[in-house]
Amino acid sequence: MSQTDMNIFETLESEVRSYCRSFPTVFTKAKGYKMWDEDGKEYIDFFSGAGALNYGHNDPKLKAKLIEYIQNDGITHSLDKATTAKGAFIKSFNDVILKPRKLDYKIMFPGPTGTNTVESALKLARKVTGRTDVISFTNGFHGMTIGSLSVTGNASKRKGAGIPLQNTVTMPYDNFVNEDSNTLQYLERFLEDNGSGVDIPAAMIVETVQGEGGINVARFEWLRKLESICKRWGILLIIDDVQAGVGRTGTFFSFEEAGITPDIVCLSKSLSGYGVPFAITLFRPDLDVWSPGEHNGTFRGNNHAFVTATAALDYWKDDSFEKEIKKKSKMTLDFLKEIADKYPELKGEVRGRGLMVGIACGEEELASKVAAEAFTRGLIMETSGPKDEVFKLFPPVNIDEEGLKKGFEIIEESVKSLVKEAVTN
Amino acid sequence: MSQTDMNIFETLESEVRSYCRSFPTVFTKAKGYKMWDEDGKEYIDFFSGAGALNYGHNDPKLKAKLIEYIQNDGITHSLDKATTAKGAFIKSFNDVILKPRKLDYKIMFPGPTGTNTVESALKLARKVTGRTDVISFTNGFHGMTIGSLSVTGNASKRKGAGIPLQNTVTMPYDNFVNEDSNTLQYLERFLEDNGSGVDIPAAMIVETVQGEGGINVARFEWLRKLESICKRWGILLIIDDVQAGVGRTGTFFSFEEAGITPDIVCLSKSLSGYGVPFAITLFRPDLDVWSPGEHNGTFRGNNHAFVTATAALDYWKDDSFEKEIKKKSKMTLDFLKEIADKYPELKGEVRGRGLMVGIACGEEELASKVAAEAFTRGLIMETSGPKDEVFKLFPPVNIDEEGLKKGFEIIEESVKSLVKEAVTN
Amino acid sequence: MSQTDMNIFETLESEVRSYCRSFPTVFTKAKGYKMWDEDGKEYIDFFSGAGALNYGHNDPKLKAKLIEYIQNDGITHSLDKATTAKGAFIKSFNDVILKPRKLDYKIMFPGPTGTNTVESALKLARKVTGRTDVISFTNGFHGMTIGSLSVTGNASKRKGAGIPLQNTVTMPYDNFVNEDSNTLQYLERFLEDNGSGVDIPAAMIVETVQGEGGINVARFEWLRKLESICKRWGILLIIDDVQAGVGRTGTFFSFEEAGITPDIVCLSKSLSGYGVPFAITLFRPDLDVWSPGEHNGTFRGNNHAFVTATAALDYWKDDSFEKEIKKKSKMTLDFLKEIADKYPELKGEVRGRGLMVGIACGEEELASKVAAEAFTRGLIMETSGPKDEVFKLFPPVNIDEEGLKKGFEIIEESVKSLVKEAVTN
Amino acid sequence: MSQTDMNIFETLESEVRSYCRSFPTVFTKAKGYKMWDEDGKEYIDFFSGAGALNYGHNDPKLKAKLIEYIQNDGITHSLDKATTAKGAFIKSFNDVILKPRKLDYKIMFPGPTGTNTVESALKLARKVTGRTDVISFTNGFHGMTIGSLSVTGNASKRKGAGIPLQNTVTMPYDNFVNEDSNTLQYLERFLEDNGSGVDIPAAMIVETVQGEGGINVARFEWLRKLESICKRWGILLIIDDVQAGVGRTGTFFSFEEAGITPDIVCLSKSLSGYGVPFAITLFRPDLDVWSPGEHNGTFRGNNHAFVTATAALDYWKDDSFEKEIKKKSKMTLDFLKEIADKYPELKGEVRGRGLMVGIACGEEELASKVAAEAFTRGLIMETSGPKDEVFKLFPPVNIDEEGLKKGFEIIEESVKSLVKEAVTN
Repeated sequence: MSQTDMNIFETLESEVRSYCRSFPTVFTKAKGYKMWDEDGKEYIDFFSGAGALNYGHNDPKLKAKLIEYIQNDGITHSLDKATTAKGAFIKSFNDVILKPRKLDYKIMFPGPTGTNTVESALKLARKVTGRTDVISFTNGFHGMTIGSLSVTGNASKRKGAGIPLQNTVTMPYDNFVNEDSNTLQYLERFLEDNGSGVDIPAAMIVETVQGEGGINVARFEWLRKLESICKRWGILLIIDDVQAGVGRTGTFFSFEEAGITPDIVCLSKSLSGYGVPFAITLFRPDLDVWSPGEHNGTFRGNNHAFVTATAALDYWKDDSFEKEIKKKSKMTLDFLKEIADKYPELKGEVRGRGLMVGIACGEEELASKVAAEAFTRGLIMETSGPKDEVFKLFPPVNIDEEGLKKGFEIIEESVKSLVKEAVTN
Repeated sequence: MSQTDMNIFETLESEVRSYCRSFPTVFTKAKGYKMWDEDGKEYIDFFSGAGALNYGHNDPKLKAKLIEYIQNDGITHSLDKATTAKGAFIKSFNDVILKPRKLDYKIMFPGPTGTNTVESALKLARKVTGRTDVISFTNGFHGMTIGSLSVTGNASKRKGAGIPLQNTVTMPYDNFVNEDSNTLQYLERFLEDNGSGVDIPAAMIVETVQGEGGINVARFEWLRKLESICKRWGILLIIDDVQAGVGRTGTFFSFEEAGITPDIVCLSKSLSGYGVPFAITLFRPDLDVWSPGEHNGTFRGNNHAFVTATAALDYWKDDSFEKEIKKKSKMTLDFLKEIADKYPELKGEVRGRGLMVGIACGEEELASKVAAEAFTRGLIMETSGPKDEVFKLFPPVNIDEEGLKKGFEIIEESVKSLVKEAVTN
Repeated sequence: MSQTDMNIFETLESEVRSYCRSFPTVFTKAKGYKMWDEDGKEYIDFFSGAGALNYGHNDPKLKAKLIEYIQNDGITHSLDKATTAKGAFIKSFNDVILKPRKLDYKIMFPGPTGTNTVESALKLARKVTGRTDVISFTNGFHGMTIGSLSVTGNASKRKGAGIPLQNTVTMPYDNFVNEDSNTLQYLERFLEDNGSGVDIPAAMIVETVQGEGGINVARFEWLRKLESICKRWGILLIIDDVQAGVGRTGTFFSFEEAGITPDIVCLSKSLSGYGVPFAITLFRPDLDVWSPGEHNGTFRGNNHAFVTATAALDYWKDDSFEKEIKKKSKMTLDFLKEIADKYPELKGEVRGRGLMVGIACGEEELASKVAAEAFTRGLIMETSGPKDEVFKLFPPVNIDEEGLKKGFEIIEESVKSLVKEAVTN
Repeated sequence: MSQTDMNIFETLESEVRSYCRSFPTVFTKAKGYKMWDEDGKEYIDFFSGAGALNYGHNDPKLKAKLIEYIQNDGITHSLDKATTAKGAFIKSFNDVILKPRKLDYKIMFPGPTGTNTVESALKLARKVTGRTDVISFTNGFHGMTIGSLSVTGNASKRKGAGIPLQNTVTMPYDNFVNEDSNTLQYLERFLEDNGSGVDIPAAMIVETVQGEGGINVARFEWLRKLESICKRWGILLIIDDVQAGVGRTGTFFSFEEAGITPDIVCLSKSLSGYGVPFAITLFRPDLDVWSPGEHNGTFRGNNHAFVTATAALDYWKDDSFEKEIKKKSKMTLDFLKEIADKYPELKGEVRGRGLMVGIACGEEELASKVAAEAFTRGLIMETSGPKDEVFKLFPPVNIDEEGLKKGFEIIEESVKSLVKEAVTN
């Protein structure tokens, strides 16, 4: 295959393109935690498609199933007609994921992207309660369409709407103000005082760990208190598990360890297992007040995704996978703490849970420099947070120890070179 | 393969499911214009995934390319990183589609669904103009997320939002009021009178043929007048070609024959050619004022779609394909006119352009009965319009004459049986 | 009394001041249809406080009652406590105005200004129906607070809001598109087609004659058809009679001759009779679903206004006053027609009903020049319309023939001098 | 004068009436701090028209000026034309109030009510900054029209809008969360973190003492910190001094003692001095970006109010009046503390500043019972707060000691009788 001309992107693709600026090469092949560009250079992938590739690239078992399905002319696109592949997914998801966790949820196919599931969740919550407002949290990220953007915190993304974003109230996430403050006491005062200007909302939408917002982790007790506040006031609790779900924090759902049961759950990204577009919305059966077709979408029935998603559920048939993730999470957090200690110039604060982790750097632009340096050394890694102050480690959750260690090495070398540079200057 | 239990859908899938109610069987395999259910029953597909399968199911050339790509571990998911498959798509799309039509457009990847491209178009128009309002048209359909829903006419879909939909003004589509009225004179009065309560909008968004809205066709002169009004007032013209584009009306873009050049074009549905999720937004280079990442999304880089979409462009390398579609369009319209004449009980009005056609029935619920009857006889066909009064023929645009005629037969038999029944009763 | 320094206004009053720019003098005294400035110059008032002084300035009977009341230390300010003066007003208004017209209305005191009554009407309509949208009409004017401004057409006034104005849809007023078009056919199509994007609104709010909008007169049949459309769809009909009411069009309410019965009526401006702030909202008893204090305001109980308003009702005890107004209306319209004929350079179109009349000039800025010229010659007169193209005659409705004729003379001289000038140039 | 039939109000006035339910009699005459009903019963007025009668009823000096003006046929209604009375007011207000306080403000006449001035302030702030959002505070009260209601906290008042209230964010007032919390630290975190979901607003609008909200007093240091936050972020500070201004807290403006200088000030209620409708908006000259007539209103020029307001400024020509108010404030606060101590059954918390004071009762409905009991004993007093938990003492600020003591006696007797009753039960 001939080389791709990078000019193609510069002249024909919109200025909105972004990651191709941070990772300026043409990728062509990938397997597990490795990617290769057209020059044959190998990269360790600690980015995982922003959480859409938790099982790594092109997992062999999923790949085999997908090719077989395509070869047999299985239905590819079905809107919301019933298909064999869809039936198999629904059954497996219920058997492998929902039942063992005692979660009694109906499954909705809202369209194949994260923002589709979030928009469907917001609509449903408003319909069920007859209320218009939704409470979201500082530095929450829920998507780019107007409904989802309205509950997203980032100022520049919000500005992109070009219209005032309405029907939402932002409340402080855990630890938003400072470590001592009790942000839920603040929230609850607004609910209990009927002169507060904040009406009882239809729902609260929250991530248990904020990925885009800077790897902010809500404490389990904070989540439990949030759940109890929702119950007290008859507010629906929506967990947006698009990025933190599907194993990223160590369990299938990110909220399992907190011991809470959301009313509505949003899943997408790694749900298909193979990186193809797929999303579902889960909710308590008594909330299923939709009229037929009241929310729809052309790509609700992406059967390739049904096939790979069903195959990916094999990872979850017993608890061995969870244990593996926890082991690697510990390795990764230990590594990060070591780095933060060893290189005080980072002014580093280790953040995260499971394999959704990173270091918030006290020095401006340092995180971006670390990520850029790592890229030239063959590792792909993103930054996040309101000022891009966090470099974020998102290896595939099924990465092996060798892969992890290779990644750690590159990161440490990158940090070291930057810190040395800074000292020299 | 064992049979799928239909109970799975009834007990585990949300009440929002819709098409599986009209077509109550489990589909398992498809090829070209044919689908088979688990009982082995064959169906002629005159639905084409609501316009997402214009090339039919599992087109063999596209299938071969896709399997080859997967087998070679090509990148599957890339966000907006540069990949070989993406580069190839951009280049081909420019060479095969844009250049020959003298369309100088930048390409944006807004996420893989129709509503993603519409939301990105609305955002861009508002950013470019600094205005908040958008004019949409009666019976327009643009998507289910809040931004797109705001420009969608259907009352029950709008109600699903649970919040007032804002920043839009609905104007009458061609022929909305009656055949004599000049709906654009009405529209222009609102623009020119500064006491009209309608501010100059950022954009107008319109379909050249309204699919969901009831196969309403805008006359070319109406479209040209609309374009000139937009030019006069500095309003951006957005053509939503999600359903009418990619050959459905006989040309790649539905607006080609009208001789207009939209400022922004939305494409999705059949763009991937294979029924996998894919969408792009096209716009004049001078409108490309996006900041990097200002609009984003996890599934902007669905490389399977890049591969099949590139392969599908082969259909458009010369004008033979367009000629074929036109021929079949004529056959289909002739058939419909014949039916309307032969069965006056239908009170049928033939509508449409290209292979986006149907009959509006003057008798309530009759269209739905025709579609239901056709289904039992082995043909899949949808209804549309504000009262589901239109039965809608959407065969694959590459269907052969044999397929078309088989479909016609079933439709005529279905009509005949219902009309007879009605007469007997 | 010493002369007032005009600098006071220029240096200390906000740039928002407006009429003092058109009428650049300091007024100090007024009586009936006459005003005097500090230099002792006399002016004929054909402006009547934009309809707030229909009985002229300082009507002697009202003045006597008011002075007596103040001297006796009658309650001045009472919020919505019961007072003797309020009781007397309510009783008289019911006896003299409502009962003889067979209008069964509850009376609400929403605050003393036009925008207060409009906002209360919109709130009530939304509460009664549970719907959010309100239909207003092109070139309608209803007030400057956000709720009222949302139903006002004027673009520059709307822009002053600084926020998008929501929850309203503007429909074309009678004759808006052109003389042949049936604007209510448009409106009804939007209501009856559930794909129109226009939801059934809570209410329609309309003026029978648009004062600020350019002296646009709705035909009685148009109003009757509008009423029947409202009835058909369960929409409340709000007549904003703030400017056209209290005798301005020849009857107490401007809608009497049309034979319609609005669900809600807004009154203010001339209601107090003396030019002091006062407004009421009238509605059918079954619509009176307010909770106590749900709408309130400090100046709901302006007892000076109760006293003068009650005294002013004497004008309406029999039909002689109506007859008088009609006579003067005829004189005025005859005069305007004569002027329009005699001075074709005006390209004048006579508009109006009752004593709410004017000439729309086909020549840009001509109306403003006529008004300015008239001012220098001792007559006060306003312009209106989206381009200030109408000069507007609003004499007190109780003006005598002598006053009318004096005014006519000045107007004709002003027109003549301008036309001559134009010809000379 | 014959007796007024109370049925008039019950049958003809809207259910929205409110105070006439708490004070069920017909008032007919008033003087200073006394009111009389039609039965000749005398009442001490500790309500002062909710702050609109700070100088008591029918102040003799103002009354004389007003009668003289009316007798001489002074201009009554003038829109925003220049008049002698208006010039005199502007000059006096500048000389007596603004200059001595070193306040360099332009004066705007936005219409005669509190909500008119608030709406004009919000519009201006949005126009100056080009931003849409406004920050308001918990339990703030700013008016009943949609713009003002959007920044008002009370849930039932907000619900009365019938539409979602937009473009505002509510932040916690001083002491809202608890006594230890620093509510401005919360507010500032939202401003400084660009992922907070709270955009930098056009303005903050705040009362220095919240009257309707429950006599909540902001500490001076809180106000100063708020001012410095506004300065830091380029946000306009609007002080709504409609209720707390014009001497109610002991100085003309309520913010004088805090040492802050708002960008915009809203005044109404007691501004006319006589209880007739009047309001002004004050702002820094560099903010005066209004276009002529961009905000208007029929009753901007209520000349009776100009006359009485000018006369009332005599109270402020030296500092003796301020001293008098302070003395009476101390007496009143001492009395309230004594009551709270002596009757622990009240669970009373004394609140307030100047003569804007009250007791928040820990026992539900007790405040309302105290007010009701006081009424039967001849004293008029309001309740406020989100649960009407505060009985509120608002005597005229020029009341004499005798009047104050009479009022105290009735209040203590009322409390005693209720407490005794409670104990007995």
